Amino acid sequence: MIMAETAPSPLAPLSCEAVAALQALLDGEHAATRELARSALLDLDLGLADSLEREDYRDQVLQWCRALAKSGAGARSFPQRYGGEGDPGGSIAAFQTLAHGDLSLLVKVGVQFGLFGGAIERLGTEQHHELYLRDLAALDLPGCFAMSESGHGSDVRSIRTQARYDVAAGEFVLHTPDESARKDWIGNAARHARLAVVFAQLDVAGEARGVHAFLVPIRSESGEVLEGVEAEDCGDKMGLQGIDNGRLRFCAVRIPRTALLDRYGQVSEDGEYTSSITSPGARFFTMIGALVQGRISIGGAGIAVARNALTIAVRWGERRRQFGTGLDMDTPLMDYLTHQRRLLPAIATSYALQAVHDHVTSLYVAQLKDPQPERQREVEALAAGLKAVATWHTVRSVQDSRECCGGKGYLAENRFAALRADSDVFVTFEGDNTVLLQLVAKTLLSDYAAQFEDLDAVGTVRHLTTRTVSRLLEDSPLGRLTRESTDLRSADWQAQAMRFREERLVDSLARRLRRLVKEERMDPLRALSHVQDHALAAATAHVERLAHQLFAAKVAEAADGPAAEVLTRLRDLYALSVVSADRAWWLEHGYVDADTSKAVQTEVNVLCGELRPAALGLVQGFGIPDGLLRAPIAVAEQHSGAGTD
Amino acid sequence: MIMAETAPSPLAPLSCEAVAALQALLDGEHAATRELARSALLDLDLGLADSLEREDYRDQVLQWCRALAKSGAGARSFPQRYGGEGDPGGSIAAFQTLAHGDLSLLVKVGVQFGLFGGAIERLGTEQHHELYLRDLAALDLPGCFAMSESGHGSDVRSIRTQARYDVAAGEFVLHTPDESARKDWIGNAARHARLAVVFAQLDVAGEARGVHAFLVPIRSESGEVLEGVEAEDCGDKMGLQGIDNGRLRFCAVRIPRTALLDRYGQVSEDGEYTSSITSPGARFFTMIGALVQGRISIGGAGIAVARNALTIAVRWGERRRQFGTGLDMDTPLMDYLTHQRRLLPAIATSYALQAVHDHVTSLYVAQLKDPQPERQREVEALAAGLKAVATWHTVRSVQDSRECCGGKGYLAENRFAALRADSDVFVTFEGDNTVLLQLVAKTLLSDYAAQFEDLDAVGTVRHLTTRTVSRLLEDSPLGRLTRESTDLRSADWQAQAMRFREERLVDSLARRLRRLVKEERMDPLRALSHVQDHALAAATAHVERLAHQLFAAKVAEAADGPAAEVLTRLRDLYALSVVSADRAWWLEHGYVDADTSKAVQTEVNVLCGELRPAALGLVQGFGIPDGLLRAPIAVAEQHSGAGTD
Repeated sequence: MIMAETAPSPLAPLSCEAVAALQALLDGEHAATRELARSALLDLDLGLADSLEREDYRDQVLQWCRALAKSGAGARSFPQRYGGEGDPGGSIAAFQTLAHGDLSLLVKVGVQFGLFGGAIERLGTEQHHELYLRDLAALDLPGCFAMSESGHGSDVRSIRTQARYDVAAGEFVLHTPDESARKDWIGNAARHARLAVVFAQLDVAGEARGVHAFLVPIRSESGEVLEGVEAEDCGDKMGLQGIDNGRLRFCAVRIPRTALLDRYGQVSEDGEYTSSITSPGARFFTMIGALVQGRISIGGAGIAVARNALTIAVRWGERRRQFGTGLDMDTPLMDYLTHQRRLLPAIATSYALQAVHDHVTSLYVAQLKDPQPERQREVEALAAGLKAVATWHTVRSVQDSRECCGGKGYLAENRFAALRADSDVFVTFEGDNTVLLQLVAKTLLSDYAAQFEDLDAVGTVRHLTTRTVSRLLEDSPLGRLTRESTDLRSADWQAQAMRFREERLVDSLARRLRRLVKEERMDPLRALSHVQDHALAAATAHVERLAHQLFAAKVAEAADGPAAEVLTRLRDLYALSVVSADRAWWLEHGYVDADTSKAVQTEVNVLCGELRPAALGLVQGFGIPDGLLRAPIAVAEQHSGAGTD
Repeated sequence: MIMAETAPSPLAPLSCEAVAALQALLDGEHAATRELARSALLDLDLGLADSLEREDYRDQVLQWCRALAKSGAGARSFPQRYGGEGDPGGSIAAFQTLAHGDLSLLVKVGVQFGLFGGAIERLGTEQHHELYLRDLAALDLPGCFAMSESGHGSDVRSIRTQARYDVAAGEFVLHTPDESARKDWIGNAARHARLAVVFAQLDVAGEARGVHAFLVPIRSESGEVLEGVEAEDCGDKMGLQGIDNGRLRFCAVRIPRTALLDRYGQVSEDGEYTSSITSPGARFFTMIGALVQGRISIGGAGIAVARNALTIAVRWGERRRQFGTGLDMDTPLMDYLTHQRRLLPAIATSYALQAVHDHVTSLYVAQLKDPQPERQREVEALAAGLKAVATWHTVRSVQDSRECCGGKGYLAENRFAALRADSDVFVTFEGDNTVLLQLVAKTLLSDYAAQFEDLDAVGTVRHLTTRTVSRLLEDSPLGRLTRESTDLRSADWQAQAMRFREERLVDSLARRLRRLVKEERMDPLRALSHVQDHALAAATAHVERLAHQLFAAKVAEAADGPAAEVLTRLRDLYALSVVSADRAWWLEHGYVDADTSKAVQTEVNVLCGELRPAALGLVQGFGIPDGLLRAPIAVAEQHSGAGTD
């Protein structure tokens, strides 16, 4: 039963060339934009966040945001004529890089340029662009994005703010019917926003036309809340104190007909509603789909935050010596297996998930240039899956990193407090992670949908589709899977194991649903709830398979470079950590036997031993300047205090 | 491959009698003391914590602490003649109950009465008791416990503060030789403490006598830091802002000979050192062992904090309705399987771990009355194991609970921010969890130690022993394990599975170490690091087995009571969640087959369905008054804001 102990062959510490190659791989095609974002952040005095009172901090964040806008690291997404760079891919890369700095600033950038500006750009037409984009890109017009309501967080389609067209006046009347329709958690709404993009149910001549977006002025230039609008602060939060989240209510506020963001639905002066998309459902999902950049961006930010935490922990783990009775007096914490197990697989995951982020960004950019319904659905599912998997990775990595730094990690100056508190909301905003993974699962199931008409009752299923499953089945039908080789370090073995799990989970999920609905006559909704854990497992398996596949491709491309050796091991570590964590599944399905399963765990330890000398280089590859890390234990010897070195 | 879907038979909502029975089971023999602690907390205006500035908050916490002392909920541990109740068991129960309130106050209580007072009581002699216990119990003498040093967190034996006996003056000279010997993270040191218990290396006539504790005045009655002492604030922390953690340095500070806490080692006027314990190692571990109450208490507090979080999440999950397109408009979040899976097993764990807490408390109290070396080692290992397992349970439960409450959970008013930030340090203070689990593993290994003389080089192993393994092997030798029955809901099946895992993990750990050291001639320290993950797994398996065993016994005792049905299911859910989480291990070792492994997961879901109607009652059983929960989403309908109900 005892496994053979394989002695690891440790890598050498990474050369400068190898570190540069790692950073180049992570920075990708937008390296120059990322560099711009880093230097723009370094020009700000981010340490002010630690000392300012809440309202002053918020105003400071607004000023920082303006400075970023000037630097070109803010609103790169917009066309050049409106002060942007016409570069949505660069904009997403810049946003991810900004996540190495202050997270309130990051979210302010996201609210102003991404949500508020993005809605006007993608849901509005040229008249709106001309009127607003220039000012908002320069932050002369701070705005907010008022979608969520108190009673309707994850379900935008059911919001209840009213927008009735008054044909006599040629105006819309925006109204909040009750407290559950109050706009809630709206960033910028409590203090800074002057204009709001408000999502409401459009009523034209007594006919419900579904959710549309409207431009509603909420504050004067001098900052007074306008008549008919009520704004209040959401109050203290766990983190992101630099963001003025607020609640908004509208009491029969009148706005001109031109205030409808009318790209997908128009109302004529005499009250005629037109839209190029006839199905209200399709129209809704088209509008929402136009806003997918937010989820891609939060997924990317989550990866970046995890990198900050892991960098601090690895640097401290290298410096801090563990003294002990009879222990080697010169043993850095990083030499301990538990330390390696907590940090190195998380580092590998941070590298692997970046490949998904790059991929979905490319798809999204291609989609903006040449919209295709199939690709749009792929982008939406991937953005949802990445956001969920990446932000849970953030929470775990920050927590493990903090614990690896012991009491030092509990001191506010070492940054974990802020990293943790500020990023915690990533897992529930821009779509709750649990809900997002169900969305991914429904996409994966769509190829089966035709067989289960009943499932259509679930509603969303019919709006989602994917070719993923069928494509997978074509590429590598179950029958063709070869399990002859169990070389755990072969990318093929890893890929096949991940593919097998994804396919089987989707297949069995579909069968279970079918049986419950068809044979047991269970209500489709109850059936979906009944298999919710299965759906989440399938969705996670999908994202993990894709992360491995995309990262392995990058590793293959880098095969001649100076980082080839370390990248191969990173890929192996990512794959085998994933397999190890869920190895019960592969055991249960007969894909691995007990010895292989144990060997996977041993191999994770061996890989940790091999990668250990490269740990510092691996986090250097994340490319975070000391001035952004800011943690004394990671940066300045003289500040660290614990003078054991 | 598709499992049969077992339809759960949901329990009815719990009756008042059942809830009362649950609370009685958790409150245990110290129910009256717990009630006293609850009402003492309710008398304080704990909401002040949310609005006060840091230094004011700290002073407020000191005042609260005084009020608790007066109420009798503070220093119950001390003899009655010094203002206590001579009731260490009640003191531990009261401490756990106080964890339902403000955690800075909790830690202040722990520092003043537990660490500072406990050290004087357990390491001092009657002269010290007479001089100090009365005043410190009334909080007329605030003090601190200065053990940890910047360079020596988890390894007290290597601290480097010096205490040289000056025979001419009849005084000790306390000195901090360098920055790594600076006392660090000392609660009460930055602001309130007037007297410090300082741990230092005793040097008598040039001979090193090891770590001893000394009473060193550090502040005048008016609060000025005394000459020769330097005190500074550790600065802002992630949480526990109400605690004035500080750093202390001593520059040749002179204290009288009587300031040595001399229960285990004495220095005569003319400089003769005596001790009833001849081995310096044994003496050190005896002194440290006398302070084990701290770890028991933190484990208990961790369980209590998890209960607060779970109560808030379940109450919100019952009230919050998930609206959705085509979804039943009246589905509480608690009806969703993912919600149940996140909260109900955590609730079961909270119940089960309480049984360990009660058990170790009883052993500890018995040990105080009738000290026995064997039992002392059992108490120390159990305290370490409980503390690690319980506080990681806290971190996970608070995080899952916060996520289950979405944006509402991110609002400070709903308490997760404070619960999370304040309790996070539990996993690394009073012994880092990773280090503590290794201590447990070494205890488990001790029966093997005789076979591996080399392991003695590790040092600590020889000071730890246990009869656990041999006792286990006697009770249920591997050969006798019957696996005929796979009734997952049988306490016997559960117990045998847990026992099998623990025994095998300890056995294989010992074999691996032996092979590495004997055959591969690996340095014992490297060998231990090499198998660190294995050691942690063995220690965790030990605590989980014990939790099940002790909880199952309580459930059996309650078999005639009104909560019998729900308790049986809680036991099953605890056991099967544990098995499900680590089912790969049982699969790998041939203890379960693939079908049983899948059945375990299905059964966890079925149990969640059965327990779901009892969820509210289960958290009511935690016995936390609304005034201590304080979260609007859990308490006051009118404050909840999200007006969906």
